Amino acid sequence: MKIAVTRKEHFNAAHRLFNPDWTDEKNDAVFGKCNNPNFHGHNYDFFVTLIGEPDPDTGYVYDLKKLSDIIKEHVLDVFDHKNLNLDTPHFKNLNPTAENIALVIWRILRQQIDNQYELKIKLYETERNIVEYPAH
Amino acid sequence: MKIAVTRKEHFNAAHRLFNPDWTDEKNDAVFGKCNNPNFHGHNYDFFVTLIGEPDPDTGYVYDLKKLSDIIKEHVLDVFDHKNLNLDTPHFKNLNPTAENIALVIWRILRQQIDNQYELKIKLYETERNIVEYPAH
Amino acid sequence: MKIAVTRKEHFNAAHRLFNPDWTDEKNDAVFGKCNNPNFHGHNYDFFVTLIGEPDPDTGYVYDLKKLSDIIKEHVLDVFDHKNLNLDTPHFKNLNPTAENIALVIWRILRQQIDNQYELKIKLYETERNIVEYPAH
Amino acid sequence: MKIAVTRKEHFNAAHRLFNPDWTDEKNDAVFGKCNNPNFHGHNYDFFVTLIGEPDPDTGYVYDLKKLSDIIKEHVLDVFDHKNLNLDTPHFKNLNPTAENIALVIWRILRQQIDNQYELKIKLYETERNIVEYPAH
Amino acid sequence: MKIAVTRKEHFNAAHRLFNPDWTDEKNDAVFGKCNNPNFHGHNYDFFVTLIGEPDPDTGYVYDLKKLSDIIKEHVLDVFDHKNLNLDTPHFKNLNPTAENIALVIWRILRQQIDNQYELKIKLYETERNIVEYPAH
Amino acid sequence: MKIAVTRKEHFNAAHRLFNPDWTDEKNDAVFGKCNNPNFHGHNYDFFVTLIGEPDPDTGYVYDLKKLSDIIKEHVLDVFDHKNLNLDTPHFKNLNPTAENIALVIWRILRQQIDNQYELKIKLYETERNIVEYPAH
Repeated sequence: MKIAVTRKEHFNAAHRLFNPDWTDEKNDAVFGKCNNPNFHGHNYDFFVTLIGEPDPDTGYVYDLKKLSDIIKEHVLDVFDHKNLNLDTPHFKNLNPTAENIALVIWRILRQQIDNQYELKIKLYETERNIVEYPAH
Repeated sequence: MKIAVTRKEHFNAAHRLFNPDWTDEKNDAVFGKCNNPNFHGHNYDFFVTLIGEPDPDTGYVYDLKKLSDIIKEHVLDVFDHKNLNLDTPHFKNLNPTAENIALVIWRILRQQIDNQYELKIKLYETERNIVEYPAH
Repeated sequence: MKIAVTRKEHFNAAHRLFNPDWTDEKNDAVFGKCNNPNFHGHNYDFFVTLIGEPDPDTGYVYDLKKLSDIIKEHVLDVFDHKNLNLDTPHFKNLNPTAENIALVIWRILRQQIDNQYELKIKLYETERNIVEYPAH
Repeated sequence: MKIAVTRKEHFNAAHRLFNPDWTDEKNDAVFGKCNNPNFHGHNYDFFVTLIGEPDPDTGYVYDLKKLSDIIKEHVLDVFDHKNLNLDTPHFKNLNPTAENIALVIWRILRQQIDNQYELKIKLYETERNIVEYPAH
Repeated sequence: MKIAVTRKEHFNAAHRLFNPDWTDEKNDAVFGKCNNPNFHGHNYDFFVTLIGEPDPDTGYVYDLKKLSDIIKEHVLDVFDHKNLNLDTPHFKNLNPTAENIALVIWRILRQQIDNQYELKIKLYETERNIVEYPAH
Repeated sequence: MKIAVTRKEHFNAAHRLFNPDWTDEKNDAVFGKCNNPNFHGHNYDFFVTLIGEPDPDTGYVYDLKKLSDIIKEHVLDVFDHKNLNLDTPHFKNLNPTAENIALVIWRILRQQIDNQYELKIKLYETERNIVEYPAH
């Protein structure tokens, strides 16, 4: 009797999309205005989902207050009001696309959440651009 | 050619989270302010999804007006503007966590919806706390 | 050069609408299912607006982080996860309609916010039922 | 390492639900006010999801700007501000239910998107009536 | 002590924007794709606001259930799932722009609501196109 | 018969809040994490409202397509995917608080919109931090 429980959180950050191995022309052609060398930014909304069995004593799959505290310590305190390219170790050599941000959040939280729970991340870079990992 | 059709509904209710087999101290430690003996409450939004084949004559998987009527009779009229702990038989001996509310709604509707349709429930206790049953 | 700045906050609470001077029949006729003696509840979203001149040194009309802290101490810690009728002094003798909740929040915050700022409250009891004080 | 990327788009259109092989009485019984012979209409919001592996050079599964351009040319320019029954070839002989609109959008985009990407459509006819194809 | 109370409602309708005194060319130049002779449509969300003094016995400015019933009888039953140009007397000789729809709803409800209450209408034709009457 | 018409638009940008005449300590004390020298960013949603009389020939107060084009040319093309502090002349010597961004947008558009129309700006820096100019 698997149930999914989800917590919504958000952070605000600056980023720039580019590939340092490419010329400026190629970066402009591929990333367009997202390649602004002075950065731009977003309000990132994201949903963290854990899938597991409800505990018969509590009726909880997972205490969402505890999940929120874990997210705050390991994700929000690292990314909120930061420049993803300059201020975080995760994107020193990784392009901070929405796909990669979702993957990084998944890897960070996977180390904090017991493996009995399946873990999924859904991230809104804008209201209209959304990524999910894993995809199914 | 399976298609999912979903109807969004909502109800407003009071509830209290606690385990009657536990001490007050343990209930406070686990459920925090959700354990207020005088209750608190929520606007519960929920999505009911049916999965099936579209009818070739109508183009409908399921008439969502009919689904809405079933939800009104069997869910809203039972839970809306009620105290889940005191006013409903379902939570007399079951902690009304979001997980258990989703399970109860699923069981109620499973009896009303033909088994040719797969049934899923997604419930928002708040904008930031969400549960889904079944999980996949 | 007056600018309005607004902070959105929310709390979850139980309440019951009734007039103790009336018969049960009259309370039912006027308040309907909102008169459930076992209470029901809501996620209350509210917007606190301050109107004033921006400070030339900061560009702020009011530090919204400071406003959020004031709201937390004087409103959220008083109302969140509470039974408005039973747990708060404000509604011991005042019907906790959306109108009265907005008025009470206004009066609480008016004592905390310097009078150089005009103060307005907009409260959503549900997505579809909304009150504002003052009205203009 | 499959990731899902999603683009939200919308169009506004008129439609009428009915089966030309049925009597007026049967159409009214099944489709109710959706069978208005003078049409009614909706703001259709829809989400197009592609599932694939991120490109190691870009960090993108798919360039969402490119996806948005494909949707504009092949879906929005065909359906936006149109009468689905009268102005589009797709619904000349197909009832424009939400289910069928989602299927048609899927078929249109399936021809534009490389088969290495799994494709999913989620369509909101209203905030409360939603369809997804494929269902899983 | 004036308080504003607001009820959100919605209807779905088809319409066409054009001026019958103009040539097709001029209508196309001014109204663009909104001038489709086969109509297009929208989900119209609207907010009805009444401003008045709260009743000391109820704590209500106006019973929003009663307001919702009035809106249903006099607005939704007239406009929902209709073609505004063809099916309603109000737009036989009036272009159904968002501005005019808001004005018509205001005039309809002004006759139903006691003049002690100030009345305001806010209408969303789409999430991005909004009108209000009166403007202040 | 004044009616308000509103267009919603958005841009994504990076910014940093600080006062160059202050010490780092004072900037940190006042602006906190918003003072990150490497910048952070937001999805800025904003609403542009024009108030005027509807044109009797069109039923429009103002063509919202035309308003959207003006906003695109004079606001979005200047601010979208930019670093407000580094890439725009407006914030070279002005702290890009939400208040100041709203004022700057108002001043830009005031030069483009005929003075017969009253002009108002409402800007969401986040879902919870909102400013309006003018305030009434």
